[in-house]
Amino acid sequence: MLMNPNKDTRLCMSLSGRPGNFGLRFHNHLYEQLGLNFYYKAFSSQDLPGAIGGIRALGIRGCGVSMPFKEACIALVDELDASAQAIQSINTIVNTNGHLKAYNTDYIAIEQLLKTHAVPQDSTFALRGSGGMAKAVASALRDGGYENGLIVARNESAGRALANSLGYRWQAELGSERPRMLVNVTPIGMTGGAQADQGAFEADAIDAAETVFDVVAVPSETPLIVRARAAGKRVITGLEVIAIQALEQFVLYTGVRPSDEQFQKAVAFARS
Amino acid sequence: MLMNPNKDTRLCMSLSGRPGNFGLRFHNHLYEQLGLNFYYKAFSSQDLPGAIGGIRALGIRGCGVSMPFKEACIALVDELDASAQAIQSINTIVNTNGHLKAYNTDYIAIEQLLKTHAVPQDSTFALRGSGGMAKAVASALRDGGYENGLIVARNESAGRALANSLGYRWQAELGSERPRMLVNVTPIGMTGGAQADQGAFEADAIDAAETVFDVVAVPSETPLIVRARAAGKRVITGLEVIAIQALEQFVLYTGVRPSDEQFQKAVAFARS
Repeated sequence: MLMNPNKDTRLCMSLSGRPGNFGLRFHNHLYEQLGLNFYYKAFSSQDLPGAIGGIRALGIRGCGVSMPFKEACIALVDELDASAQAIQSINTIVNTNGHLKAYNTDYIAIEQLLKTHAVPQDSTFALRGSGGMAKAVASALRDGGYENGLIVARNESAGRALANSLGYRWQAELGSERPRMLVNVTPIGMTGGAQADQGAFEADAIDAAETVFDVVAVPSETPLIVRARAAGKRVITGLEVIAIQALEQFVLYTGVRPSDEQFQKAVAFARS
Repeated sequence: MLMNPNKDTRLCMSLSGRPGNFGLRFHNHLYEQLGLNFYYKAFSSQDLPGAIGGIRALGIRGCGVSMPFKEACIALVDELDASAQAIQSINTIVNTNGHLKAYNTDYIAIEQLLKTHAVPQDSTFALRGSGGMAKAVASALRDGGYENGLIVARNESAGRALANSLGYRWQAELGSERPRMLVNVTPIGMTGGAQADQGAFEADAIDAAETVFDVVAVPSETPLIVRARAAGKRVITGLEVIAIQALEQFVLYTGVRPSDEQFQKAVAFARS
């Protein structure tokens, strides 16, 4: 527990370009609630091989990996879980006696959320975005059986490549299409971004949809989500994604699955 | 503070073959008392270059180095402080923006203790031992102006080398010599050792001395110290050495010097 660290305390960590507080507050709060002798520390680094070498040499149990390291880490680990293999992007490293296995718990979280929110598999969807996270979300949709999809991306080469790799269509804009699910995987609506006050989809596309899924987590009530809630749609938020991906990291690192109440308490604490 | 780690929390650590609890309890308790946003973690490692590389890559602020790494670390740092230069043995690494400077705070602690206990500089002394710590203690004695010394060591080559390097004499046993200060830098009297119940010097040598200094810290009341206290001698204990060397590490890492009361509280907490 945090107040009584000793020589047996295990370290978990995160590695990102710009560390935040959510992960470390989430993990440390659960360690404390559950009485686990762990401590979670956020790091940044200019030297990825040195950092991963340090994880091995110091026996650090687990590492969350954020931008811009999600792809570059792949060459430095020993094994890729299926969740990371197909999309060639990782966000989690688990160190078991020096053997580093990498996972993508974003992918795992999205797969789970589509099930728990009971989004019908035959829903048509449009996914806006073509970056690393868009790849994870689109792959989870494809692997979840959502076959009729459209990738919307102004970046034609990235958009086409993503669409082609998964058997989806590509368009630069949504145009007149009115799919049953809208998925935003761009920074539109994100606090501090250039388009913080904008919605990723037009109002009439939202009105025509059944489900609206926004990966933006800060704020989790983006203009898109606010509009979708007002229209009575099924919504899935970015907060759910970051919370569940952190929960799955926690389970991988500690081998312990918190109760739903403990999980919700940790999410509330991590956001406060 | 420990209860509220955030993204700006700085990490300090120790690296040793068999981590203990003293250092981490001492440092973490002072961080808490002083409201410093630091956390201290004990590590072991089989891969010293990887561990030191991790310190650089992750921006870990400081590292205490124990057996068996005190000499091997030298090739991996950028600069040696005077306290480490002469004896070619380090126990502390300070990382300032990727520049690693190594110190020997054992040496610094011993220099201080000879002064605070007002051991007369013209005292003759016998120092038993010839390992890495004996080198630090003998060097601090020499640099403190104690010129008339005898190194007592069964290992002739190590004992002679240490004695010759500092201008002292060497003998395999104390024999009939009765110096004014006795210094033990062997494991004799240490809990769990083969000679835990033995004294490092004979009773009549203790009776003839003015000062008895035992570097053994667990227990700090070794048979040697118990006998010396009973005989009313000036005593310096291993607990004082590990506490002051830890304090000097703390000052190097944080730039803050605790009050004597804060220091004593942290020592009491670390031992409990």
